[in-house]
Amino acid sequence: MADEDGRHGAEGEFDIIARYFAPLATNPAALGLLDDAAVLSIPEGQELVATCDTIIAGVHFLPNDPPDTVGYKALATSLSDLAAKGARPHVYLLSVALPGLPAQAWLEAFVMGLQAAQESSGIDLVGGDTCATLGPLTVTVTAIGVLPQGEAVLRRGAMSGDRLYVSGTIGDAALGLRLLRAPSLEAEWGLSRDEGAFLVDRYRCPSARTALALPLRQCARAAIDVSDGLVGDTAKLCQASGVSATIEAARVPLSPAAGKAVAKTPELLAELIAAGDDYEIVAAMEASHASGFEKEANDHGVSITAIGEIGAGSGVTVVDGEGREIKLPRAGFEHFA
Amino acid sequence: MADEDGRHGAEGEFDIIARYFAPLATNPAALGLLDDAAVLSIPEGQELVATCDTIIAGVHFLPNDPPDTVGYKALATSLSDLAAKGARPHVYLLSVALPGLPAQAWLEAFVMGLQAAQESSGIDLVGGDTCATLGPLTVTVTAIGVLPQGEAVLRRGAMSGDRLYVSGTIGDAALGLRLLRAPSLEAEWGLSRDEGAFLVDRYRCPSARTALALPLRQCARAAIDVSDGLVGDTAKLCQASGVSATIEAARVPLSPAAGKAVAKTPELLAELIAAGDDYEIVAAMEASHASGFEKEANDHGVSITAIGEIGAGSGVTVVDGEGREIKLPRAGFEHFA
Repeated sequence: MADEDGRHGAEGEFDIIARYFAPLATNPAALGLLDDAAVLSIPEGQELVATCDTIIAGVHFLPNDPPDTVGYKALATSLSDLAAKGARPHVYLLSVALPGLPAQAWLEAFVMGLQAAQESSGIDLVGGDTCATLGPLTVTVTAIGVLPQGEAVLRRGAMSGDRLYVSGTIGDAALGLRLLRAPSLEAEWGLSRDEGAFLVDRYRCPSARTALALPLRQCARAAIDVSDGLVGDTAKLCQASGVSATIEAARVPLSPAAGKAVAKTPELLAELIAAGDDYEIVAAMEASHASGFEKEANDHGVSITAIGEIGAGSGVTVVDGEGREIKLPRAGFEHFA
Repeated sequence: MADEDGRHGAEGEFDIIARYFAPLATNPAALGLLDDAAVLSIPEGQELVATCDTIIAGVHFLPNDPPDTVGYKALATSLSDLAAKGARPHVYLLSVALPGLPAQAWLEAFVMGLQAAQESSGIDLVGGDTCATLGPLTVTVTAIGVLPQGEAVLRRGAMSGDRLYVSGTIGDAALGLRLLRAPSLEAEWGLSRDEGAFLVDRYRCPSARTALALPLRQCARAAIDVSDGLVGDTAKLCQASGVSATIEAARVPLSPAAGKAVAKTPELLAELIAAGDDYEIVAAMEASHASGFEKEANDHGVSITAIGEIGAGSGVTVVDGEGREIKLPRAGFEHFA
């Protein structure tokens, strides 16, 4: 029972697991979270894709972000990696390090955010760890996806002459984070309240492009999800593939809200192209697969945009409408940099 | 390049991954840690066991524990879970949240500890995440093991009349932690320097009982690894199995060092039986499998000891030589308790 300030005086980690996390773990592999490991069967002919991401208060999200958005984001960042590989989400393990025993309402909201991300992707909780930390809230998700043997889409594989595509819109999350830090920018950028809220939501609750997994497997030679910035992550794809890329700045898809902000403050564009937290997907494919990819992505409800080309050599160049190189403020987010 | 104080001025997460972690990731599934996910094939007819554990400075290890022991322990805690399930270690993902950019010597030692745990178990690094935290060093390992379909040893399955076994020795880690906090206890307990160092090492570098996986699969009906205390973890096995257990305190195996400390301070015994961090394995099995298990464990180089019996009902009772119940100080470690 919660006491008056909503904290669980007598509860410990096992109560938290049983009361809040076990309802998320309906997959038989989870053993009801009553065991210390999950036991999983993988369908014959399928391969696993495994990825692990940690988000930390004050680093990957703001300490006062609502707990449902923290739960959602923790799972979405890993789901985004699975989507980029072309994998179908299967199960995940969750490690939560809590700075003290949280209030009941906090736990309920955090679990609601996880639940929403589970429902949008079909992934199930099967295990994990709950403990206390002397530091900030730290959430690690290890997500496991499946796909037919040999069909994983990797960072390597792009070839000179390939078309470069990106899903959704770029830069919303970076603008949302700036709005959270300086709310007066909303007016400065000429945005309505709804437009401001949209950008903040894109920062807090990124949409993992799970629906793009199959079109990527069918059409792409290489792909990566954009977590550290469109340019920085495209550079990683190029490095792994041994190629270069040219991105046309004017073709980078912007949401109406981001478009409005850039119209008022044109120098924002270069910043958005380099900023992180988009959780969109960049993919390279043969020109002959481009129209098929556009159709498949459309059929799966994901908007995609051709933004450039793969070439020989190395590095990423961003050019304006006349083909002149645009210098960027930085090449992507890096810890310790 | 490191600058004069041994810190990597210009390096970021990607350099840390490439220089320190990539050499641990020789399995082809790791894609050289150049991708953001691992792609794994699982042999036909095999099942996966997945487990996730976080260790945090100031909670699970001491902030000044040597970095090689931190790396070793991070992996050993998850390997212990795999062993208890009867699984062969396969691959792991590693998430490290670092409080600032560490010195080169720190990273080298941390990696050496991981390497040692890899070599002792045959597990390979295949992926993970490296980031900065505003809090204490936090290391999460997600370990994946394999075993033949349907052969996982669970917490549930123990039956009334089963023999109860434990591997290795109990209480060393708890004594080691007390010695680290109060070095004068070494003399008080009548221990030599080597005996004190042995206990500290058992706290810092627990031995996951990987070699016991096969004997457990062959003989045990239920098992659990002892991370939160012999009594507390046996209670979890009993709860999952719907049974009770009686443990004879005098039969609980102690190392020579722990035996000496208990001889000097007999009230320590009850404390050690309830304390955590042993990373030994408790297993329940039919009496008819007992001698086979003893032989198999012996052949695999792991000492095991019969410490009690499974009965009807619920709960764990610890008794002395005359069958009288011994009251324990607490039932096992719990966060937030």
